[in-house]
Amino acid sequence: MAGHIGIVGAGLVGGGWSIVFARAGEQVRVYDAAPTIRDEFKAVVGRQLDDLKSYDLVDDPAAILARIQVCGCLEDVIKGACFVQESVLEQTEVKAEISNAIGPLLDDGAIVGSSTSGIPGSAFTEHAANRERFLVTHPVNPPYLVPVVEVVPTPWTAQDSVHAALALMTSVGQSPVLVRREVEGFILNRLQGALLREAWDLFEEGYASAEDIDKTVSVGLGLRWSFMGPFETIDLNAPGGVADYAERLGPLYHSIQKSRTDPKPWSAGLIGDVDKERRAALPTDKLAERRNWRDRRLMALAAHKAKQS
Amino acid sequence: MAGHIGIVGAGLVGGGWSIVFARAGEQVRVYDAAPTIRDEFKAVVGRQLDDLKSYDLVDDPAAILARIQVCGCLEDVIKGACFVQESVLEQTEVKAEISNAIGPLLDDGAIVGSSTSGIPGSAFTEHAANRERFLVTHPVNPPYLVPVVEVVPTPWTAQDSVHAALALMTSVGQSPVLVRREVEGFILNRLQGALLREAWDLFEEGYASAEDIDKTVSVGLGLRWSFMGPFETIDLNAPGGVADYAERLGPLYHSIQKSRTDPKPWSAGLIGDVDKERRAALPTDKLAERRNWRDRRLMALAAHKAKQS
Repeated sequence: MAGHIGIVGAGLVGGGWSIVFARAGEQVRVYDAAPTIRDEFKAVVGRQLDDLKSYDLVDDPAAILARIQVCGCLEDVIKGACFVQESVLEQTEVKAEISNAIGPLLDDGAIVGSSTSGIPGSAFTEHAANRERFLVTHPVNPPYLVPVVEVVPTPWTAQDSVHAALALMTSVGQSPVLVRREVEGFILNRLQGALLREAWDLFEEGYASAEDIDKTVSVGLGLRWSFMGPFETIDLNAPGGVADYAERLGPLYHSIQKSRTDPKPWSAGLIGDVDKERRAALPTDKLAERRNWRDRRLMALAAHKAKQS
Repeated sequence: MAGHIGIVGAGLVGGGWSIVFARAGEQVRVYDAAPTIRDEFKAVVGRQLDDLKSYDLVDDPAAILARIQVCGCLEDVIKGACFVQESVLEQTEVKAEISNAIGPLLDDGAIVGSSTSGIPGSAFTEHAANRERFLVTHPVNPPYLVPVVEVVPTPWTAQDSVHAALALMTSVGQSPVLVRREVEGFILNRLQGALLREAWDLFEEGYASAEDIDKTVSVGLGLRWSFMGPFETIDLNAPGGVADYAERLGPLYHSIQKSRTDPKPWSAGLIGDVDKERRAALPTDKLAERRNWRDRRLMALAAHKAKQS
């Protein structure tokens, strides 16, 4: 694209985005209000690139890192940018303040995507200059391993901006999905929430341990879901496709759902019980090590998926 | 174990189970009431074993096949068996009839697991001899690639039978989960149903296409879920573990669920719309080919997972 990519907010999420764009050959400029974060940024990203290299997920970490430039002022990052990815703190006021600062600095046609996972874009872009070029581009962490990006326009986002964001995300190797209008939790967390809610309920009612509920997914449902979505899964699970499947099993699923009409909050007692089981399986001081394991598994899975057709 | 494994019902599911047990070194005897199925059984299983060999998932297909013996009468399969896996037609009366036939033939201590995906064991084992040794052992197809098995006792299943079934499944390389008491859909399909229900609703309300909802899982949520369950996923997604995560995000998820208190049936119009999109993406005459692709992906994923630690 003409112009560089601007990254505003250089924590874990902004760092991940930098890798996505620089890996795809884009020039990347990064800004964060905190000098410490700016100072450490390239070292942090460099280590992540080395990890990716060890799984053959990037060819040349040094060349990728060389395309990333950390800047000391916001203007240097926004001016000349064709696209700005904003990943500042997940608070409406903070997002509004930075959107209002970014808006007037935008080049003609430049677009701004926010990494917010839960705040609708309309809550913090209403008063920004060029607000028709703001939208949500919600990643999953880390975006260089999990390609899905939820693209969610606000009521005032121009169609051109939506199309440009979808095209850019595709061009850098991500997999954008269009959420046609704002909805609480967007799509990804609504789907996750639906599964979690049934998981909490089954645990609370004593049907199974948290470990066994987890296994039902990790050595069961999750295998297909790592390469096919829920609709394609059921489409292939009946001779005549999804309509055939729905005719056979729709009534069972409806009956199950009728047992879940009273959504309870995740209560303190329930959370405590699951936490107790989890901490027995994985003590608090082992969480960090297990997160590293998860990230290695994600890298290995990404390398595996890249080889499939 | 002392004694062979009996397989009753030799269709797709029974064939899959034969591979699981014979692959683990067990002697397997197979019965089906239909002569045609019996005659073709070893050829069908042989082809599946050759596929597994091509992904290095078995060493010696011929040796595995040699451990499988097809029998012309039920008694030859049950007598001398330490465990019987029943996979006849998914109809309560058919399951009851075969359970009543199997019960009196059982050796001392032999256990019977049913492959039913949706009928509680209590609905078809109540009048069987030795009913305390009947339970549900529900696989996912094909069980030799997807290791989860839901072990679901009836109200009259003995604890010893439950423990023996769990131990056997573990010993042959499956991953049993204990569903402590009967519940409609067991655990796996309840979790799947919860996700599907939100997927149908999001589609119906126009938030996204079926393709984009699918991508949210297949290149997003499903990656972690192929090696970690939902509880472990959120446990690792907040600095202080699951309790910390629940404190931060519980209210958002509860708010989302409050928008889903009126479970609708999967309506004909809605099913038609999803079917229309799916058939545009994958015509009916390509379904079989895509199922083969799915099975190859599952085999490649199983080979990948076997190499991870």
